[in-house]
Amino acid sequence: MTAKIIKGKPVADRMQAGITEATAQIEAKYGFRPGLATVLVGDNPASHQYVRMKRNRCKEVGIESFGHELPADATQEAVEGLVRKLGADPEVNGILVQLPLPGHLDEEAVLSAIPLHKDVDGFHPVNIGRLAMKGRKPLFVPCTPAGAILLLEEAGATFEGAEAVVLGRSNIVGLPAALLLIHRNATVTVCHSRTKNLPEVCRKADILIAAVGRAEMVKADWVKPGAYVIDVGSNQVEDPGSAKGYKWVGDVAFDEVKEVAGAITPSPGGVGPMTIAGLLQNTLRAAEIAIERGEIPA
Amino acid sequence: MTAKIIKGKPVADRMQAGITEATAQIEAKYGFRPGLATVLVGDNPASHQYVRMKRNRCKEVGIESFGHELPADATQEAVEGLVRKLGADPEVNGILVQLPLPGHLDEEAVLSAIPLHKDVDGFHPVNIGRLAMKGRKPLFVPCTPAGAILLLEEAGATFEGAEAVVLGRSNIVGLPAALLLIHRNATVTVCHSRTKNLPEVCRKADILIAAVGRAEMVKADWVKPGAYVIDVGSNQVEDPGSAKGYKWVGDVAFDEVKEVAGAITPSPGGVGPMTIAGLLQNTLRAAEIAIERGEIPA
Repeated sequence: MTAKIIKGKPVADRMQAGITEATAQIEAKYGFRPGLATVLVGDNPASHQYVRMKRNRCKEVGIESFGHELPADATQEAVEGLVRKLGADPEVNGILVQLPLPGHLDEEAVLSAIPLHKDVDGFHPVNIGRLAMKGRKPLFVPCTPAGAILLLEEAGATFEGAEAVVLGRSNIVGLPAALLLIHRNATVTVCHSRTKNLPEVCRKADILIAAVGRAEMVKADWVKPGAYVIDVGSNQVEDPGSAKGYKWVGDVAFDEVKEVAGAITPSPGGVGPMTIAGLLQNTLRAAEIAIERGEIPA
Repeated sequence: MTAKIIKGKPVADRMQAGITEATAQIEAKYGFRPGLATVLVGDNPASHQYVRMKRNRCKEVGIESFGHELPADATQEAVEGLVRKLGADPEVNGILVQLPLPGHLDEEAVLSAIPLHKDVDGFHPVNIGRLAMKGRKPLFVPCTPAGAILLLEEAGATFEGAEAVVLGRSNIVGLPAALLLIHRNATVTVCHSRTKNLPEVCRKADILIAAVGRAEMVKADWVKPGAYVIDVGSNQVEDPGSAKGYKWVGDVAFDEVKEVAGAITPSPGGVGPMTIAGLLQNTLRAAEIAIERGEIPA
């Protein structure tokens, strides 16, 4: 059996079409466009590229983007001050602080300075706390794990009573993904670098989410036949045969796992496109919240 | 093999002796005793009994306790107003809102009104968010799961790489226990009422924490030989032979499981005594934080 391939782009495109329509309606009705402020500290080339991609995608759907860059040696006060200024700016509906921040900065303090209703990345401790707790609703769910869940729904996965294994426990993917699955009534196991018998643990998963950042670590014999496999990994590996000399691969050995799994996301092309679509969706939602709060820019 | 019995009282007594000494030192040096305010809304007899027990134990260790009771129909404003007043009171170092609150009240809003540095139950969304996230430290860890971890340490359990299964995903026990175990590098599975093949899932656990509130549900054949079993359950069952006509039992069928497990807590007498000891410890810590902040009562 060859697995159903779960592609992210068609789902992300559909989301973006809906967002484009909604932003146009907001502009027609309230005279403003939803706005996303990006805060980038330092010179990390990957971070610069991510922020550029996010800003380009904003433009595609009619979201204003406001780019703010601070030098790598920016003080805690400068970064928090900027975040607070954006928090008070009615033209800014969502604030995205690109992570990781330079090591001298207190990440939690910076994220906590984002007003809850503008926390479109969903990383404010209160949003994470609400995500963790039963009966609480975060205003915003972190984009990548939310995208992983959406793709599982899209592919027809059943969560209730399913055995789900999450490989990785990062704050931005593994942990929130596990929390989302627990609340959907899956039996959830969180694995990581210290897990013993990793292949055996993974093999019991009806739903397997890999988010560890190790190229093609998950092999065919780690996967239960028919399982749903979501590959969040994105790893650069040498590829002497290509012009660039490298290529991108996921955490899952796609070619062999697709022969065992029931459904699988490719990487690139799976969860990746969903992440920015989720950010745009959250920014639209933030604009709707601002309208509900009567905070409409002049 | 008969399991080692992990009793909570000796550990709790040792903690209380340390707390008694520390509160005496604070009084000698700073002229005040740590203070715990309890907020009780309504007439739930069990809640009244819990609060009474907590206040009695405060007295034993030299912590001042301030009892506040509100009627069952108290408004959201009244409850939040009281919590905020206590938040501003320098004689109050810790604030405990006894849960559950009557159904018409917004629990999260009430808990959020507790200043973080007085949140001795550890249920403020920010404290739970910090507990969930890697690299963050909550000011206070919820008392019951913290007690469960302490008893495991006391009994000599190894967390690193262990398979841990948590039965139950409540906000006050199961979920925070799972988070504490993840951060201790265990491979953690969270089970609940929708889990399929529960006995099989439990059987792979090196560490099993039962917190579901179902009398003697965990049987001998659910337990891996030699496992550490922590029973957080406390269930009243009929006992026609006794004077009262009932008795208390845990979520684990103690008599048969102790023949399989390597170590096991009884219930009552296991985690129970640790919960209040943890609350007292957190109140002492809150007083130390107040001293660090220069907030010493006049």
